[in-house]
This record gives sequence, C-alpha cells and structure tokens, in this order.
Amino acid sequence: MAANTQDVIMLFGDSLTQGGWEPLGFAQRLASAYVRKLDVINRGLSGYQTDWAIPVLEQIIAKQHEQHHVPTVQLLTIWYGANDAAPLPSPQHVPRDQFKANLIHLVDMVKSPTSAYYSPHTRIILITPPPVNTHQWPGRDFDQTRLYAEAVKEAGHQTGVPIADVWTEIWEAAGRDERACEEFLSDGLHLNAAGYEIVFNSIMKIVADKYPEIHHEKLQTIFVPWSEVNVDDPRSSLAKRPTIVWLG
Amino acid sequence: MAANTQDVIMLFGDSLTQGGWEPLGFAQRLASAYVRKLDVINRGLSGYQTDWAIPVLEQIIAKQHEQHHVPTVQLLTIWYGANDAAPLPSPQHVPRDQFKANLIHLVDMVKSPTSAYYSPHTRIILITPPPVNTHQWPGRDFDQTRLYAEAVKEAGHQTGVPIADVWTEIWEAAGRDERACEEFLSDGLHLNAAGYEIVFNSIMKIVADKYPEIHHEKLQTIFVPWSEVNVDDPRSSLAKRPTIVWLG
Repeated sequence: MAANTQDVIMLFGDSLTQGGWEPLGFAQRLASAYVRKLDVINRGLSGYQTDWAIPVLEQIIAKQHEQHHVPTVQLLTIWYGANDAAPLPSPQHVPRDQFKANLIHLVDMVKSPTSAYYSPHTRIILITPPPVNTHQWPGRDFDQTRLYAEAVKEAGHQTGVPIADVWTEIWEAAGRDERACEEFLSDGLHLNAAGYEIVFNSIMKIVADKYPEIHHEKLQTIFVPWSEVNVDDPRSSLAKRPTIVWLG
Repeated sequence: MAANTQDVIMLFGDSLTQGGWEPLGFAQRLASAYVRKLDVINRGLSGYQTDWAIPVLEQIIAKQHEQHHVPTVQLLTIWYGANDAAPLPSPQHVPRDQFKANLIHLVDMVKSPTSAYYSPHTRIILITPPPVNTHQWPGRDFDQTRLYAEAVKEAGHQTGVPIADVWTEIWEAAGRDERACEEFLSDGLHLNAAGYEIVFNSIMKIVADKYPEIHHEKLQTIFVPWSEVNVDDPRSSLAKRPTIVWLG
C-alpha cells in the first residue's frame, strides 16, 4: 500500500488532459518538473463534458472529513469545453450557459466554505480549449469552440480563478490562421508536443505569478539530495520533509 | 484533497527510476498505458543506494493498520544497484553481500506476513542495473556493476520475485560490446529512450506472464468510456468501478 508521502497536482478534464501522459504532454512535463516534490494525478476522461464531470469530481476529491487521510491537492487544473462545444445532436453537447454554470459549480465545490468538498489549500487553474482546425476535424465548429473558450474566461473572472488561455495562445502563435493551427494540433482537436508545450508554459507562468510558493524551483525534495545523507547515521537524515518551504 | 480513486504502480529506485518521467522514460510509458486505470507514483531518488532505501521504504508504503485509507500498490518495481556498485571510497558503495541482503529485506518488508508493512496484494518486480559504459562514465567499473546485477537475480530467486534483467537485455542488444551500450545510455550510466524502451517491455512481459490480471489491456477504466454514459441519467452510469476485472 502507498503511504501518503507526497501531495499532488490533479489534472481534471477530457481527452486533452488524458493525452497529457504522452511524451512531451503537459502531464509528463509536470511530472518531470515536480519529481520527488509533488505527484501528478491524471484525471482526464476522453469524450467527457461538464455535465458528466460533476459526478466524477464528487468521487475524485475527498470530502472534508476524509481529508486528513489523503494527499492534499496543491494544484487542480480544470480543462473542459472541447466536447461541450460539440454541435447538436451530439450527446456531448452542453449549452454554453450551462457549460459556464457547470465550470463555476466545479470551482465552488472546492472553493466554497459551505461545500462538503471544501479544500482551502487547493489552488485552481482553469484552461480554455484550444482552437479547433475544422479542416482537420470537420465534426466541430471553429466559432463555437471560441465561444466556449470565452465562457471559460468568464467563469474564471466570476470565481477569481486564473485562466490558462490556451485558445488565445495557440491562436496567436498560429498567426490567427485556422489552418496554421495544425502546427499545434495532431488531428485538428487534440494537441501535439508543440501544443502541450504552450499548455505547460502557460500553467507554469500562472504558478510563478499567482502561486509562487508551489513553483517546482521553490520546493524542496521530500527526501534529501543524496549528497546530504549523513553517511555515518543515514536514518537521521532520511526523514520525510515538507516540500513547501514557507519563507514568510 | 485527492480521494482514493485509483490504485497505483509504485516505482522505487535511484536516478534510473527518477529519470523515468522523461519523455519515453519507463514511468511515462507506464502512465500512458495505465491512464484511467492505475496511477504511476515515481519514488526514484537520484544517487541513493539500498542502505538508504530501507528507511525510505518505511515511509513511502503504509503499515497494515493504515492500509484501508490508502491506494493499494498493485505493482512495485525495486531498482537499485547502479550506485551500490560505485567503487570505494564513494559513500554510495554498498558491499555486494550487503546489497543483496538489503534487496531481500526490501522484498520481505512487503511480502512477509510478520512485517508491519505486509501487503499481500502487492506484486513486486526486481530490476537489474544496466551495464555501465566506462568509456562514457569513468567513475564506475563494468564488472562490478555486472556482479551487482547478478546479486539482484540471486535476491529474486531467493524470494521468488520475478526479475526484469535489464543488464542482460541491454548487453545482448548491444552485441556484448561495452562501447555499443551507448545506443541505450545517455551518459554511460543513465538510460536514453531506447534503454527505457527495453525496461518498459521487460516489465510488461513479466506482467503478461506472471501478473496478467493487472496487464493494462485486461483492466477496465475506473469511469466508463464516454460512449457508455447514460445520456438521459448520466449520474447512474458514472459511479467509479474497480479496474481489475476478475474473470475466474
């Protein structure tokens, strides 16, 4: 059984999150940057949208009375919209207003002191879906996805949660040209390594600006670097340490 | 806070394990293969050897009375030797007999019914250190590391734990030529993507042969594929499921 040794970064979302474990995906990059400091937990569910995300989140984060047994989620990314924006009659479709309300509900589950899942130490980042290249993926609508990316930003502003605006960053990097988005998309909907690099950098910029105490460069390893092991009495130097070092 | 949603694969070792989160490293490959089924927890500690590993393992796996609160370690890889084999006067050096005894102690901590850490459901794989290319990394001795790889195999035979014999697999793939090992080593000691491919394949072959019930192709996702969500009553179909499906 695994003891509760490291706190975690939880990545919650759809296939864009699930695919984050690919080589050079954003989960892999985060896991590499945070090795020995925070574990990365991928809770990406391909094809899911926010109506379905709510009952899932209720099962993947702990209620208040369970929290002392489990790792703290130091950072939670919430990344939906790519499927919510699917046009009707797709069962994935969620109306834009409902999508925005669902995002706010997901945030409030963690942030609201009256929520059973209230977790005051969990920092949240909302991520916008990337632009869709309908030349590559005809089943989506370019402007529809843009409007859902806008809804993520509105939900972020309304809840005070910072936004990794992947839609705009990729759109600008592609010179505001839908076809040129293929540089960042493997199939018109999902990201390739260049796309995930934008996601990773955007997350790390927010962490540096808003949540600097959990930047990987500010954390210490749970177990000391090997050069600091007391060779004459190893056990004395090998006690687990907190990774977050509060400097005041 | 993170609820106890998925069981885990724990990777315990030195820098060869810590580096497993690199793109195409064995941790990344396992995390990708097991996404939505088992979480991969990297407990690799660069520079560590088995004398130091014992007090660490005591803190990263749960004692029996704590186990009902925490994820089950369905698979534990133990991969040491690269540093134990460092020649004296390196403080990393562990005599070969002590190294072997330490490995057996680590296995017994999990496997022995009298151990406080006894975890009958945890499957273990021991991994041999790769051959060292002393043309690339002069601080190690080729034959010394070979003898430590042999010690891992002896510990495996003595405890009945299967062995991913990375030393032999890389040695054979390199045509039994020390210089040719550079195809699999980034710096003479650590693995590159080709080296980690051998590690991943060796682990998955053992899983297929010895522990087929946890092969990723035999596991079901914790949450149903999106096409199986009941659109008219989503919550009814979105309860967490066990990932291991016992067929008989």
